[in-house]
Formats: sequence, structure tokens, C-alpha cells
Amino acid sequence: MLLSEMAEQPAVLAGLIEHGGADAVSASGLLCAPDIHHVVIAARGTSDNAARYAKYVWGSKLGLPVTLAAPSLHTSHGTQPDHSGAAVVGISQSGQSPDLIAVVESGRRQGRPTIVITNQPESPLASLADVVVSLRAGPERSVAATKTYTATLMAIALIAAQSDRMAAISALGTVPDAVAEVLDAASRIGAAAEAFGPVRDCVVLGRGYHYATSFEWALKLQEMAYVLAHPFSTADFAHGPFAVLERDFPVLAVAVRGALFDGTVEMLHRIRNERRAHLLVVTDDASIGLPSIEIPSIDEWLSPIPAIVAAQVFTEALARVRGVDPEQPRGLRKITKTT
Amino acid sequence: MLLSEMAEQPAVLAGLIEHGGADAVSASGLLCAPDIHHVVIAARGTSDNAARYAKYVWGSKLGLPVTLAAPSLHTSHGTQPDHSGAAVVGISQSGQSPDLIAVVESGRRQGRPTIVITNQPESPLASLADVVVSLRAGPERSVAATKTYTATLMAIALIAAQSDRMAAISALGTVPDAVAEVLDAASRIGAAAEAFGPVRDCVVLGRGYHYATSFEWALKLQEMAYVLAHPFSTADFAHGPFAVLERDFPVLAVAVRGALFDGTVEMLHRIRNERRAHLLVVTDDASIGLPSIEIPSIDEWLSPIPAIVAAQVFTEALARVRGVDPEQPRGLRKITKTT
Repeated sequence: MLLSEMAEQPAVLAGLIEHGGADAVSASGLLCAPDIHHVVIAARGTSDNAARYAKYVWGSKLGLPVTLAAPSLHTSHGTQPDHSGAAVVGISQSGQSPDLIAVVESGRRQGRPTIVITNQPESPLASLADVVVSLRAGPERSVAATKTYTATLMAIALIAAQSDRMAAISALGTVPDAVAEVLDAASRIGAAAEAFGPVRDCVVLGRGYHYATSFEWALKLQEMAYVLAHPFSTADFAHGPFAVLERDFPVLAVAVRGALFDGTVEMLHRIRNERRAHLLVVTDDASIGLPSIEIPSIDEWLSPIPAIVAAQVFTEALARVRGVDPEQPRGLRKITKTT
Repeated sequence: MLLSEMAEQPAVLAGLIEHGGADAVSASGLLCAPDIHHVVIAARGTSDNAARYAKYVWGSKLGLPVTLAAPSLHTSHGTQPDHSGAAVVGISQSGQSPDLIAVVESGRRQGRPTIVITNQPESPLASLADVVVSLRAGPERSVAATKTYTATLMAIALIAAQSDRMAAISALGTVPDAVAEVLDAASRIGAAAEAFGPVRDCVVLGRGYHYATSFEWALKLQEMAYVLAHPFSTADFAHGPFAVLERDFPVLAVAVRGALFDGTVEMLHRIRNERRAHLLVVTDDASIGLPSIEIPSIDEWLSPIPAIVAAQVFTEALARVRGVDPEQPRGLRKITKTT
């Protein structure tokens, strides 16, 4: 089930590009209205990682600061944050969680525009939205979200692309093929996972657009393979966590060509040379001189989609190496209703 | 040096309450102006954890949504986020980091009010601020920040308290004594650390006001004791990380009486009963029936100050149990200049 859902990703992404345009135009129209100066996003778990991607993409492409909401301020402290100047966005595969509903409701009550990105356009959360962006990913049954995560990233990118139609929209078209190429390399990626079989914990590093990738890869490692993975921004890593690294400590990282590439690669070399960590880098530049999983090179801002697919394939293989069934994580439910 | 800086905290906090009022009144005036609808905070490392506290305190007491800035959007992607409706706040012990300077500068260029909370009121960052809130903590030489973290929380609380002067300001006065009481219990807290001596990694849980505590405690564990500590919101923990817990896995947590207390305690009981984790809870309610470090009970929104001091004492003791010198973390520098 998990593998088949992972395999659907190129088709899901292509379908969203083909059929999601009208939703994205409406959402973009709300976000780019002259009275919108920032965006508040409410999300949990995997969707919160997608919100981290939105923070960078909408920040860089639309110039909009993105706040990740603190839902407990609404549900437990009863506060009504001032949403003046904001658009309020909920992101949720299932559209069920009461705390997310509370945030989007508060935006609605204050007369602010609301957008919901969801795989369940008939859900309670979606019913509160001025614009619903439907993921059209089909049912996702695995506890570990894969196709709904990449579809959510694509929905966020599709909304951003409306502000700069021609160049950005044609770049989106490169994503499904890049993802298919990663999936075709599954046996090569799975081989890289073998050396990490005995690990109990690891660090996952990414920065900028790939801050989201580090969090989502870490979450997959926890859910699917029971590895206690710790996500960090490569920039924050120098502020303390660097000291933790012992020789052979497993470090997974993403380094993709773009604005942050040189700094990231420099830090990764320090991690290998000074701390002798056990490093593996997902990259589109095999010339970095570090152990790597190569992914196709596409525009930096879209690279979190093929990068996380490489991470999914790696993690699914790692789970099997570790004798864990990634279909049935112990103690987890598909839908979590936080209040 | 570390222990003496930790021991200074009651005096530093009392001094800030006594002498920081004028700074806080000015900062509060800027934040509560009618054209301010949200706050953007730029910070890294320990100061970023203080920003997480500000997100909850200014969210609940001032109704202001707080965005943690993505500094790399400014420095590496060259984006100029729209700061309309925002006050821009920089938090930094040293006031040196170029990426934080870039964020506060962008606020200034857009004519937005700027506030800098720093221990170095003559720093480059402070020179950009309309209002400087000086921590008055004296020089901090240890790499691991202790007194500047609690002073930053107090500065944030002092600013929030201006909106509701009498009740809130008198509550602030309870903090230095509560911190002194925690420091006096060092040998009892240190004894609790002994059982955690052999750990390599752990989870640190907190929620709401204590989301910041979980991050800052985890950072201290990394820097001071080389424990790979992983902070989580208790609410997010059910979304995946719960599956990772093996029998006897070390879990540190904060559970303080208030709006989120019952839900947090329920999750902690599940962690102990279903996963048989090795649990230790910093709490102001010893009746929860879980292994705990008790701290004095003060207003929930101020409890992150005594709670993190208990965590500092625990972690310093743990470092010594582990044979690590917490004064000299390997590979770290006191001032990190991220670009």
C-alpha cells in the first residue's frame, strides 16, 4: 500500500498541475490582494512540514511573511489573535482536526480570507474556506503520508507560480518526470540505505526550501523505520548540535544547487572532516565529493519534491533493512485530532 | 563560570524587573500601536527559543501573531518580505549576526518600528532599533547561554505585562524567588540526573508556553552534555514520534498547571504505560503520579523561567555524570555569525 501510494506520485503531481489551476488562481488572487500583508498557516505533522515549505516559497515568490499558527492559543488559552492584514490558511490531509478548525474559524469570524489545502474537499475544515485547494491525490491509507505531502508542496508551488505565470508554470512541468526518475532509481537508493541499518538515531540537515525536507524526512524516519531522527537547519546546527556528533554518527542531509548551496556543502565537509560523521547527502550535484544520492536537477524552489521522494524511497528501504513494517507504525493513527 | 552564571539568575532577573521598566514601556508602546497587527522576530539558537516563548506570551497577552523570520530569505535569496502591519524584533545576546541585522534593517527600510532585545546595547544590531531592551545580565562567557536566556524571557514577559499593569507586574516579582528556590534544590535535581547518565539521546516534551522550554532544554542537553535531545510539542508527538519510543527510552517533559496540563499529563501517562519509557517530568504538581522534579508554582505564563533553570541544573549535573566538561563544548563558539 505504501509503495503503491509512493509510486502514484508522478501521476498525482501531473494531475494536480493539469486540474488544480483554477483552485490555485483563486487562492493566489486572495493572497495577492492589496490588503493582505502576511499569511497565517495552521497545520500539524506532515502538513506542518508542508507549511514550512510555504514559508519559504510564499516568502520568496510572493514577498509574504508566513506565520505558523500556534493552535493551542486558540483551543486551550481561548485567545483570539488579531488576524488584521492576514490570510488564514489551513493545511490538512483529512480536514478533521479541531485545533486547525479553530484557527481557520477565527480568521473567518474576523472577516479575513481563508484558504484550505486538503485531500478531503468535503471535510469540516474545507467547509470553512473561501477557497479550497483540493489535492486530488486519491485515498491515502498508509499512516505515513507520502503522495499527500508531495501534492501539498505542489499545491503551494502552483499558488506561488500564478504571480509569475510563464516561467514558473513551465518549471512545474519538470517535477513529475524528476519524481519518476527518482522512483526508477529505487534499487540504487535502497542500496545506500543498507549501511544505515543499525542506526538508532540520526541528524537530518537542510536549509531554506529544504528546511521542510529535513523535518519531513525526519518524520518519515520516525514513523516508518523507528529511527529517532533530529531535523535541523544547517544554519542552526553550528549553535550547539554540532558538539553532539561523535565519530560515525549518522547524518543525512540535502544540498541542492542554489543560493544556500556553498554554505551548506562547506558545513557538510566540516561535519565529515572534523567530526568524522557517517554522512549521506541528497544532492543534484555529484561533484561535491561527499557520499550522495543523486537526484535530477530542477529549479531550486521545486527541488523539495524530488528530494523528499528520494528520502521516502531511502526510508522505506531502511525500514525493511531494520525488519520494521513501514505500513503499520505502532501506536499511530492516520487521523490525529488535536484539541 | 557556567555555575556562577547560573547562580546569578535571581539577581539578574530582579535587576531587570527593577531597571528594565522604561525599556519595556517603550517596547510595549510600539507593539500596541493601532497600526501593528503582527510581530516578526529574527533570532538564532537560544534566542530563537526565547522567540518561541514570545510567540505564546505576546500571542496570548497582546493578541499579536508572532512570525519567526526566515533570515535566509533576506540574506541568501535577496527577498524583501512585506513588513506592512508588523513590528520587527531582533533577539540576540551579542547583537552581531549578519542575518539578524539584515532582517531588522529590512524592517527599518520599510519604515516599520524595530525593537532589539540584547545583552549588548552597543552592538550593530542594537544600533538599528527604535527601542533597545537591554538585558543587563552582565558578561556571559560560557558558550551555553543560561542567564541571558532567562533574562530574555523576562524581557519578553515585562513587555507583555505593560498591557495589564497591576496583576501582571506583581506576578513578575514572584519569579526571582522561584528561580532561587530551584537553584537551592540543586543537589536533589542533580540526583535525578544520575539515572540518565548513560543515555545517548532523548526526547524533550513541552507545549504552549513550554514549547520554548522543550527546545531550550534540548539545546542545553546537546551543548552541555552531548546528549542528542529531540524537542517536540506534546501535541505533535502523537503524529509519528510516539512510534519511535522503545522500552526505557529517556523522555524528559514539562507539565505545569494551566490550560494544557490535563492533556499533557494524559499523554505522559500513555508514554509511560504503553511505551514503558524512562520518564522524568519537571512539574509544579507532584500529585501527577510520575517521576518528577518539582518546581515552585507560579503563574503558568511565567513558569518557563523556573522550569528552564531546573533543566539547566539537571543538565549541568548530567554533563558531570557523563564526564563531559560543560564549560567547553567541542566545536562551538560563543558568537555565531550566520549569513
